[in-house]
Amino acid sequence: MLEVEDKTPLPKPDGPETESLAFRDEEGELNPEFLAAAADAIEASEVERLQRLVEDFHESELGDLLEALEPDQRPRLIELLGASFDFAALTEVDEAVREEILEELETATVAEGVRELDSDDAVTILESMREEEQAEVLDQLPAIERVALQRSLDYPEDSAGRRMQTEFIAVPPFWTVGQTIDFMRETDDLPETFYEIFVIDPAAHLLGSVPLDRLLRSKRPVTIQDVMNAEPDRVEATEHQEEVARLFERYNLVSSAVVDDAGRLVGVILVDDIVDVLEEEADADIKQLGGVKSDEELSDTILYIQRSRFPWLFANMCTAFLAAGVIRLFSDSLERMVALAILMPIVASMGGNAGTQTMTVAVRALATRELGRANAWRIIRREAAVGLLNGLVFAIILGTLAGLWFQSPQLGFVIGLALVTVLVFAALGGIFVPLTLNRFGVDPAVSSGPFVTSITDIVGFFAFLGIATAWFHL
Amino acid sequence: MLEVEDKTPLPKPDGPETESLAFRDEEGELNPEFLAAAADAIEASEVERLQRLVEDFHESELGDLLEALEPDQRPRLIELLGASFDFAALTEVDEAVREEILEELETATVAEGVRELDSDDAVTILESMREEEQAEVLDQLPAIERVALQRSLDYPEDSAGRRMQTEFIAVPPFWTVGQTIDFMRETDDLPETFYEIFVIDPAAHLLGSVPLDRLLRSKRPVTIQDVMNAEPDRVEATEHQEEVARLFERYNLVSSAVVDDAGRLVGVILVDDIVDVLEEEADADIKQLGGVKSDEELSDTILYIQRSRFPWLFANMCTAFLAAGVIRLFSDSLERMVALAILMPIVASMGGNAGTQTMTVAVRALATRELGRANAWRIIRREAAVGLLNGLVFAIILGTLAGLWFQSPQLGFVIGLALVTVLVFAALGGIFVPLTLNRFGVDPAVSSGPFVTSITDIVGFFAFLGIATAWFHL
Repeated sequence: MLEVEDKTPLPKPDGPETESLAFRDEEGELNPEFLAAAADAIEASEVERLQRLVEDFHESELGDLLEALEPDQRPRLIELLGASFDFAALTEVDEAVREEILEELETATVAEGVRELDSDDAVTILESMREEEQAEVLDQLPAIERVALQRSLDYPEDSAGRRMQTEFIAVPPFWTVGQTIDFMRETDDLPETFYEIFVIDPAAHLLGSVPLDRLLRSKRPVTIQDVMNAEPDRVEATEHQEEVARLFERYNLVSSAVVDDAGRLVGVILVDDIVDVLEEEADADIKQLGGVKSDEELSDTILYIQRSRFPWLFANMCTAFLAAGVIRLFSDSLERMVALAILMPIVASMGGNAGTQTMTVAVRALATRELGRANAWRIIRREAAVGLLNGLVFAIILGTLAGLWFQSPQLGFVIGLALVTVLVFAALGGIFVPLTLNRFGVDPAVSSGPFVTSITDIVGFFAFLGIATAWFHL
Repeated sequence: MLEVEDKTPLPKPDGPETESLAFRDEEGELNPEFLAAAADAIEASEVERLQRLVEDFHESELGDLLEALEPDQRPRLIELLGASFDFAALTEVDEAVREEILEELETATVAEGVRELDSDDAVTILESMREEEQAEVLDQLPAIERVALQRSLDYPEDSAGRRMQTEFIAVPPFWTVGQTIDFMRETDDLPETFYEIFVIDPAAHLLGSVPLDRLLRSKRPVTIQDVMNAEPDRVEATEHQEEVARLFERYNLVSSAVVDDAGRLVGVILVDDIVDVLEEEADADIKQLGGVKSDEELSDTILYIQRSRFPWLFANMCTAFLAAGVIRLFSDSLERMVALAILMPIVASMGGNAGTQTMTVAVRALATRELGRANAWRIIRREAAVGLLNGLVFAIILGTLAGLWFQSPQLGFVIGLALVTVLVFAALGGIFVPLTLNRFGVDPAVSSGPFVTSITDIVGFFAFLGIATAWFHL
């Protein structure tokens, strides 16, 4: 258990308002009673009661509370808490929630709050504001902070430059370990957390890095030059955050220098931001595969969600019409043999599901770079073989069942034949569609679904109705 | 760019075999030419050439190479490289690959390799071995290491105890900062990486922790007691790794103490292992939503995959038969009006897709604990409203198109009415199914899919064919 759950109860004040409500229940879910108490305190503008409730809250808990409140209560909570509100909590909420809250707050309040933050958190907040308001907040900050934040904001969205922290420790290579440690002991304004110190030349070019544990293990007279890692992990500030995340993951990093195009040290990226990037990315893949936009959040409004889910349903409608067109080609057969109409959705749905299985594996393997030129053919062959095998197995099962149901062994044979065909096509579609989209630079997670199901629907109806028409001379 | 890509080319040996092949191409994909060269060197047992190829490889690159090789080449690579093979690479490959390789290697080789590793990596390797072989390897290790590894292995699978590293630095509270730093300078056998040191009493109970940056900033005569965090982050060794990962994520941790049930310090979990856990978990959710078992890997055999994908397809077949049963109820209507057979798959497929959208959002929000008792009703109402809205929008679009296609405004009206019905049911099914499964302790990612699509299929066919039959008096 983490410390938050061990926390000693707050000293109870007098009066009936004594509260020792837990923020989360045993399963880690937000406690509805706590939420109600917080909402009450906000509605009644009871500052002290509110402060007692959220005293010692970690920024992530404060963030979760903000998300759970009604939209109009969120800025009120911040105003009521005043200087005791930790603006880092705003980095823990959904982007839509953050934008809404920032709309409501005075720029002076935001400027005050942002000043207390590490630069990466400040940037996260500033990038959620409209440009004019962003400029107003920046204007109210001291020059040094303003320049550093502005520089981060000038890097492209979702780049390393936006995620980096501009607070870091950099020393010249000729310092000794002792000098460096003394410097850190004497400087008040050190970054809140750091895992390595950097070594730079007078023009700020990155020369090396020294992890803290190595610094601690070295004797005082040794020069930094002699203990530094001369090939430090570094990323370019313009690099996309997903690429940076993959590097952290691959090389088990906790911190990496960020350099500009001239190799000058401009910031540091820490692993906690990378953990968030990885989560965001996985979240995006999951949602996109399910036909939901990657930025859809629980806090979005009904109208926003309706609009954002529309395109996928529309694409699906178009492919469904295509499939219906295929069915129409066989109108006569359907009229003569209604069993075909009853059984055809089974064939199509088996194909759709098998195609989705293959596609899911392919999309994920492409995202994690496990699938590439070196093994594409092996995976294609493997999927085709799996499709053929499962096709044969289900041909026997489904053929038998359908034959018995309609007391027609021939119908069973026809559906079996159709099933083998559709499962092989489903496997091929499931792998070729994502590979092709990826080759052309289209994100396969977003758009593979409709293509794959339209292939499986069309092949499914065509194979089943076509084979049946030929077999029974319909 | 990371250092690996900046690496200066190796000194070129004489002869025609000079190689300066890149391991990855610009897109981060494995270079097929490199792979071919490595495979050649293995087949020809050319130890030196092989060593030159993988010289300075990071364990993750060595792991990627192992995965890309043919199965019989993998143990050969390890044997050829001998002592220069870093066994940490085995922690970077899929579990199935690891098991296969370990089957082939001599236990003496494994024991030798495992000795060099941090305990968490050693445990990852040992837990992939059969019990007898695991015991053989443990027998060949020095007693201290054997005991520590055995203790980790005694914790349940996927628990914090399995993921922890048993190498850590713990000091008594009365030591000074100076003493502690001197101790670290003089001790050779420190953990490879660490971000905090722990404070314990004589019985090893965890009293506190000191992050390295705080240690560095403190003056030498200060006692540890005065700088330590007296409520250090801690997890129980029996806690599931996913819970631990959520805590790291929530509180931005890089390292956490692991304690036994008596509060004694037994190990430390570092963030790099947590990054892997988060990836595994996201991977599992993505695969399960797509109807694939969470442990399916690109390296699995055709037969294994065929068998593992069978149950989902079988479940889908059963629900498809149910839906076909519904269609059969309306055989007469279908015979009289073949347009119904043509249009009915459109209705079902729209419902299936809308249901999947809602389900995806719900499953993901349950996994990240964003959806809980406190907001379930709000989300249910929101999803129902989105379903109703999109139902109305598509009723108009689809109704118009179908009406024009079959030149029957009445048919358009019928399909529109059916569509509103099915999209509302899809939304409700998409949220209630995961919520209910979750309430009963069943993982919603694994089993929501078949339930949701069977609801949408059955409601879709029933609504469309039922309304049509009533409307047209079929």
